[in-house]
Amino acid sequence: MKNFSKISGLGIISALVFTSSAYSQELTLESLQAENAFVFNTLLFLIGGFLVMFMAAGFAMLEAGLVRSKNVSMQCLKNISLYSVAGIMYWCLGYSLMYTQVNGGYLGTFLPYSWPDAGVVNEGEYSVGSDWFFQMVFCATTASIVSGTLAERIKFWPFLIFTAILTGILYPIAGSWKWGAGWLDTMNFQDFAGSTLVHSVGGWAALTGAIILGARKGRYGPGGQVTPMPGSNIPLATLGTFILWLGWFGFNGGSQLALSGNVNASDISRIFINTNLAAAGGVVAVIILLQLVYKRIDVTMALNGALAGLVSITAEPLTPSPLAAIIIGAIGGAIVVFAVPALDKLKIDDVVGAIPVHLLAGIWGTMAVPITNSGASYAMQSVGVVAYAAFTIIASGIIWYVMKATIGIRVSDEEEYLGLDKSEIGVEAYPEFASGRV
Amino acid sequence: MKNFSKISGLGIISALVFTSSAYSQELTLESLQAENAFVFNTLLFLIGGFLVMFMAAGFAMLEAGLVRSKNVSMQCLKNISLYSVAGIMYWCLGYSLMYTQVNGGYLGTFLPYSWPDAGVVNEGEYSVGSDWFFQMVFCATTASIVSGTLAERIKFWPFLIFTAILTGILYPIAGSWKWGAGWLDTMNFQDFAGSTLVHSVGGWAALTGAIILGARKGRYGPGGQVTPMPGSNIPLATLGTFILWLGWFGFNGGSQLALSGNVNASDISRIFINTNLAAAGGVVAVIILLQLVYKRIDVTMALNGALAGLVSITAEPLTPSPLAAIIIGAIGGAIVVFAVPALDKLKIDDVVGAIPVHLLAGIWGTMAVPITNSGASYAMQSVGVVAYAAFTIIASGIIWYVMKATIGIRVSDEEEYLGLDKSEIGVEAYPEFASGRV
Amino acid sequence: MKNFSKISGLGIISALVFTSSAYSQELTLESLQAENAFVFNTLLFLIGGFLVMFMAAGFAMLEAGLVRSKNVSMQCLKNISLYSVAGIMYWCLGYSLMYTQVNGGYLGTFLPYSWPDAGVVNEGEYSVGSDWFFQMVFCATTASIVSGTLAERIKFWPFLIFTAILTGILYPIAGSWKWGAGWLDTMNFQDFAGSTLVHSVGGWAALTGAIILGARKGRYGPGGQVTPMPGSNIPLATLGTFILWLGWFGFNGGSQLALSGNVNASDISRIFINTNLAAAGGVVAVIILLQLVYKRIDVTMALNGALAGLVSITAEPLTPSPLAAIIIGAIGGAIVVFAVPALDKLKIDDVVGAIPVHLLAGIWGTMAVPITNSGASYAMQSVGVVAYAAFTIIASGIIWYVMKATIGIRVSDEEEYLGLDKSEIGVEAYPEFASGRV
Repeated sequence: MKNFSKISGLGIISALVFTSSAYSQELTLESLQAENAFVFNTLLFLIGGFLVMFMAAGFAMLEAGLVRSKNVSMQCLKNISLYSVAGIMYWCLGYSLMYTQVNGGYLGTFLPYSWPDAGVVNEGEYSVGSDWFFQMVFCATTASIVSGTLAERIKFWPFLIFTAILTGILYPIAGSWKWGAGWLDTMNFQDFAGSTLVHSVGGWAALTGAIILGARKGRYGPGGQVTPMPGSNIPLATLGTFILWLGWFGFNGGSQLALSGNVNASDISRIFINTNLAAAGGVVAVIILLQLVYKRIDVTMALNGALAGLVSITAEPLTPSPLAAIIIGAIGGAIVVFAVPALDKLKIDDVVGAIPVHLLAGIWGTMAVPITNSGASYAMQSVGVVAYAAFTIIASGIIWYVMKATIGIRVSDEEEYLGLDKSEIGVEAYPEFASGRV
Repeated sequence: MKNFSKISGLGIISALVFTSSAYSQELTLESLQAENAFVFNTLLFLIGGFLVMFMAAGFAMLEAGLVRSKNVSMQCLKNISLYSVAGIMYWCLGYSLMYTQVNGGYLGTFLPYSWPDAGVVNEGEYSVGSDWFFQMVFCATTASIVSGTLAERIKFWPFLIFTAILTGILYPIAGSWKWGAGWLDTMNFQDFAGSTLVHSVGGWAALTGAIILGARKGRYGPGGQVTPMPGSNIPLATLGTFILWLGWFGFNGGSQLALSGNVNASDISRIFINTNLAAAGGVVAVIILLQLVYKRIDVTMALNGALAGLVSITAEPLTPSPLAAIIIGAIGGAIVVFAVPALDKLKIDDVVGAIPVHLLAGIWGTMAVPITNSGASYAMQSVGVVAYAAFTIIASGIIWYVMKATIGIRVSDEEEYLGLDKSEIGVEAYPEFASGRV
Repeated sequence: MKNFSKISGLGIISALVFTSSAYSQELTLESLQAENAFVFNTLLFLIGGFLVMFMAAGFAMLEAGLVRSKNVSMQCLKNISLYSVAGIMYWCLGYSLMYTQVNGGYLGTFLPYSWPDAGVVNEGEYSVGSDWFFQMVFCATTASIVSGTLAERIKFWPFLIFTAILTGILYPIAGSWKWGAGWLDTMNFQDFAGSTLVHSVGGWAALTGAIILGARKGRYGPGGQVTPMPGSNIPLATLGTFILWLGWFGFNGGSQLALSGNVNASDISRIFINTNLAAAGGVVAVIILLQLVYKRIDVTMALNGALAGLVSITAEPLTPSPLAAIIIGAIGGAIVVFAVPALDKLKIDDVVGAIPVHLLAGIWGTMAVPITNSGASYAMQSVGVVAYAAFTIIASGIIWYVMKATIGIRVSDEEEYLGLDKSEIGVEAYPEFASGRV
């Protein structure tokens, strides 16, 4: 055999695991079906997981493209660091807080994730390891949302401490309420893939941080004027958006949680279509609205329109018809067009537009679930939205304030003027191009 | 259970669908085999589909890298907009025009795509939704081809109107002739994954547009000299090429249309190998030819060599031997080397080289099918090539001319000089770097 | 049916293959299980393969981001060319040298890869074509490692000749010792996915080349001072790192070599988790160490920390616990922090840091296998590490020296000063931005 050696090298381990498992059982139709289901479902988590993992690159590129060149290296560093910290925190705390023994309650246990016994690993409807991986990348996504809003003025280490707490404690506790079979699940709050659990939680944390941190120097003038601070690299932001769009097929499709059997496979196909059409609806709504209202089509708005469409459909990508998906996404896009200037009026400085995209479109998507899913109610969706808002604002507000009062969360004015690349990390993003003109 | 809640949340919907389907049937060897086949085939469409979807990002990066910096934001906007419009048009018109009740004829019905009944959704050999998704991304690819050629001088909205007609009507009608079991299929024209149906159709539309639109100002001097207008960002163009190469495994591999059973799995593996080797052959042919002829290796030619190799093998990626695949791709690459200067002699201004890559290599690949596939004939391949040429040139020519005579398709000279980023969308791609030197 | 035509078009071929195969056999539980296993295992190779293929883009972006702008186009050209050459060489020589009739010995046969008979293609535990594809992308990875270290001063064609020999002869011979069931496999050397076979081999070849080629002009002053030559595009390097991280799930996960059955699916899930946590450990170790030692966090170090963590876990991604994976990766990251300045002390000019990342972390990962895998021994791991070192240093050293003495491997001082883009290929990477300041 070609790979005789590679396979034989594994033989020892596999044999050990194998003999300790229950698969010495007789081969029957039922056992074969169960085996296929296990592999299919695990494969869904792994494929969905690597697609969502790649969203970390999408956020990194989106943000690197939308900040000014003097802060690009720092934004890259923050993104690779937050993804790393999220993975480690979700191992040492998050997963067990979110899913273990939480049924009916508010949080799980404080235990690092470790491999279950071989029997448990290899039985059931999917590999628990694949589920861990899939849930971990969702947790990391929540943290990615925060980094864009707070770019260009937050200090590196306080940002990373917040990320650690968010991914290790806040997101898992909040997530357990619904996906850990906690109280909101008991009350039938519906959020298929996380318009609220992931995107609004990230959005509330970002909004709270933006208010406490304050706007970038020079962003808002005394007379209410807004100084544009255009992104330094539009094609990178475009690439980031496309990567996020790609990743979203894993995000929403994988949240079906099973691939085995005709019904699951068909449902995932439907989710792919609706996810794609909602994003398309977001883009088309934005470009038409911008043309009508402003006579110019800001490309960064169009990119955020795609993302807002995606966030909007995330709470319920399965039950809408294609037309409904387009409309849900289009309304998400419209929210971006009107919310971006509104935030500027409020002097809330959201560098990449994450608050309209993830928070507002996330709320919209969550409230839109009952339109197409008769199993959901507006009342319970509202309870969920408010509960996540209250928890995230209070918890993240406390963390931001404590850090502000102790170690400080904002760089000095001079450092901000120089740019974080020079002042904090000593590596310019584009040492041969950047004129520092803006 | 870990995801008890997420699963239970879906339980209601799944149960409804499930009970209305035929799967209350007894589990037998045959039913289990059919169920596995359904999931495998659907999975192929979904994986192939997301890979081809990502080609939209590849085209965006390729084009953003090959236009001048003053038009980069616009090129990004066009690419995300065309992918969005293609999805919506393929929903509201394209799919049913291409595939419904078209057998033996020229076009299908004018109906938006909607979900079939649950029984239909969940039965058969694959999920129809997954097929829709896979076919939609092919349709979008056709539109992506056009945007590169016409870059830097076409107006945004006329381009988008053309895209809507191309993806909603032209491509589906043309596609139905072969893949919708229309007249060319009846006559045994062969095009496995679309050298002609996708790439030549896109290429003819681009060529027609390029002629009607005219060259960029200053591109061709009165004495026949050609002013180089070098791309602004070579690594982005390289990234785009690699993304397209990646996506092509989905494009050609997914066009096997089934993953179930040993034969399909083996065939797809063979397609992967041939696809990769043809691209490699394209690159190697280009770099050797450039070294011999010009003594310098233009990197954008090498990138286009990879793409030409990929287009060349797309009409028949299954039957060639590995060596034949390398040669087919190498000839595709050679076409690029000689066609790019030839087009400039004809004063046809193809900004990214899409006409040699998609049109000429697409024709070559289509005509090469009979070399390795005894089921194809040179006569019928020629009929197909000519039919698609005639239809696309006439139909797209009419559209371009009508728009030119009414709303206009070209920006003013001053806007072209300023760049579309400033004149049409108001967002510079690289506000801190661009010197506007070129 | 929707795709009646596309399917029927294939019908002829498939039917031919089908009838010549053994699948006219009766459908039984055992045959159905075998069929599913064949498809699952083939699918693993195809998915793993396209993920590893995309690593070629990751290396291209990492290197394009870390060289100076005057050499970026050349680095793009080298990367797409080496990936192409690797594919062709692995077809015409590599695969059969590595895997055919090598059992117990040192190398296989000198035959181009061709399709086995239909019976062989469609039987067994996976498609041999899918295995070829998967092994080919590993081979290409080895070559990618070399290109970064030698950037900015090596000539194009000598580099490509070296690549051809490395991918067609050296890597396959070395690989056959273990994965081709050769002498190191007989002696029970363990390397799950290639910390030594891929990464150290590439690293030794790079190190040998770097010493023979010499440092970039002006890099090392007479008094021992090191002139920084910062990378020109940090977000591209970040993107490259994320792409490599993504690809590594295919690299390590696919090296399980089988997806069928609960045990394989669970093992792959465990590999995904460990792969991700090792990379995360690498990043976190680097940022903490840099903060403590230098008070500044060089973002390129953090990127290389992720890669070093990934290389470290590659020799054994299955047996470590999550905590062990984090620690193994963290030590890999620490190696980068201390090895980068050490190499500069030795005046070995490694442009992108590939020697610490791939060679040193590769050795570390290989030696760490016995910590968690009781089937491995430190003695045999050392034998393997030394054997690969000796073979690669001697063989690649001879090639570099022969080329240096004949065709020359280094550009002239003037060409180096101008940059390879202008002097060798005539295409600037960023014609509108680059000031040539650095």
